[in-house]
Amino acid sequence: MSEISAYLEQRRALVEDALDASIRDDGSRLVEAMRYALLGGGKRIRPILLLAAADAVGTDRPASPALMPFACAIEMIHAYSLVHDDLPAMDDDELRRGRPTLHIRYDEALAILAGDGLLTEAFSVMSGVAAQTADPAAARAAAEIAAAAGAAGMVGGQADDMAAEGSEAGVDEVERIHRRKTGALLRAAVRAGALLGGADQKQLSALTAYGESLGLAFQVVDDVLDATAPTQATGKTAGRDRERGKRTYPVLLGLDGARARAEELRRGARSALEPFGAAADPLRDLVDFVVDRAAAAA
Amino acid sequence: MSEISAYLEQRRALVEDALDASIRDDGSRLVEAMRYALLGGGKRIRPILLLAAADAVGTDRPASPALMPFACAIEMIHAYSLVHDDLPAMDDDELRRGRPTLHIRYDEALAILAGDGLLTEAFSVMSGVAAQTADPAAARAAAEIAAAAGAAGMVGGQADDMAAEGSEAGVDEVERIHRRKTGALLRAAVRAGALLGGADQKQLSALTAYGESLGLAFQVVDDVLDATAPTQATGKTAGRDRERGKRTYPVLLGLDGARARAEELRRGARSALEPFGAAADPLRDLVDFVVDRAAAAA
Repeated sequence: MSEISAYLEQRRALVEDALDASIRDDGSRLVEAMRYALLGGGKRIRPILLLAAADAVGTDRPASPALMPFACAIEMIHAYSLVHDDLPAMDDDELRRGRPTLHIRYDEALAILAGDGLLTEAFSVMSGVAAQTADPAAARAAAEIAAAAGAAGMVGGQADDMAAEGSEAGVDEVERIHRRKTGALLRAAVRAGALLGGADQKQLSALTAYGESLGLAFQVVDDVLDATAPTQATGKTAGRDRERGKRTYPVLLGLDGARARAEELRRGARSALEPFGAAADPLRDLVDFVVDRAAAAA
Repeated sequence: MSEISAYLEQRRALVEDALDASIRDDGSRLVEAMRYALLGGGKRIRPILLLAAADAVGTDRPASPALMPFACAIEMIHAYSLVHDDLPAMDDDELRRGRPTLHIRYDEALAILAGDGLLTEAFSVMSGVAAQTADPAAARAAAEIAAAAGAAGMVGGQADDMAAEGSEAGVDEVERIHRRKTGALLRAAVRAGALLGGADQKQLSALTAYGESLGLAFQVVDDVLDATAPTQATGKTAGRDRERGKRTYPVLLGLDGARARAEELRRGARSALEPFGAAADPLRDLVDFVVDRAAAAA
């Protein structure tokens, strides 16, 4: 997948530069902490998904100036969610992307505030762009991202996930949690990109199906990696799910079953892309990138 | 100030109903906690300010359908900030509006998530309305509120305030902190209302000056109340500022000096309203309401 990687890598580099410019160091510890959380590596899946979804539908028109700001904003939301999830009262993780988590590197109060600051900055960026461009798609995309990040989406999924720890939740319940906890924001990244790219209703539906399959595949693979990969491979403390008695896909389906589920979701995601032809190649690459992380750790 | 109170009370009741309808109980503990934080009383100063600012400029046109949703959104942001500020790692408060704080009533993880959920819901509401109405003023008002709530505003002020605890900060430094910590969101409430009400540039400038004076007055009075009022009068644990070695206005200026500062700010706020005539009476009442809380505690 060498061509694939070239596209992804080029996009990743563009996103990295835009993120670095999106929050300017002002000499305060708060902004330093926000930048630490935002710029410490990461695969940048969500912003790249957003850009690639716009590319899949918008090949015949100039790219919207809202795309890169929205790509940065959705990564800020992702970064904030990691900072808060890592807090002692939540998942209590000390390692993220191979570095100390924010409350370890700074302190708990600053970690809470830096997360709040990142979430707020995301909406500042999106509503600023919506106001400047007066593009109704920008306001709609911001609304979709907000809904996906909130109680009906990511925050609600995290609350349910914590409540389900040590429970006897089955596959359906676990899948329901993941659709909100990680799936909703990935789906929103795809839909926001599609909306900003000018998708029609049919394209939007197809890309939504793609985003949903990819979102679930992402979580299945994350669970497989937690169970199989050493700490240095993921940058996260290995085996934390098992320690906490989490109902993961490998626990529920076995490792082979979980890998088979990821393959099934890959097929679903790719099949949703059929109408788009070559313009969706980057989206095909992205689902391969996501699922092949698990194969690589086999 | 009986007529005054009637307007404020009528608006407060409207806001209370709208807040209750803004986040629907879905049976989850998360949403229950969000509602506990949002609906547990409170003076509703920010939403009423927003509505009253729109009334001051928009008497000759129908009220924007965005007003009440924005009023609710700004109160959600205020409520989230209280939940996170009360956390053990932050101000570690156990009492708010006469009831246990959220992390006492539920637990710390749910308090963090409920705060995150309220902040996100605020932006969901605002961007949803901006998308529906396609009113450029709504996108701009959302952008201003986001900027005021973030690292350059409220979150930054809270971080600076914590860093200044036990320090020898002087009046100027303390004022600089408060302009961001509490002032920025109050100012944004006024400006958002003015924008949604259709203010011209001159009206917007005058109302901004009003909002800045009122915002500072609010904090001066809060400090005075912390130093003088018993717990049952404020619903917050009395004397917490002193315990924490906070540099408050009474510490810096003495109680009489702080009260004189509040009066000076009241005059500044009222003088900014001169161009508006009777349409700004509710805004005059609001600054009196804010400052007279301190006089009542004398």
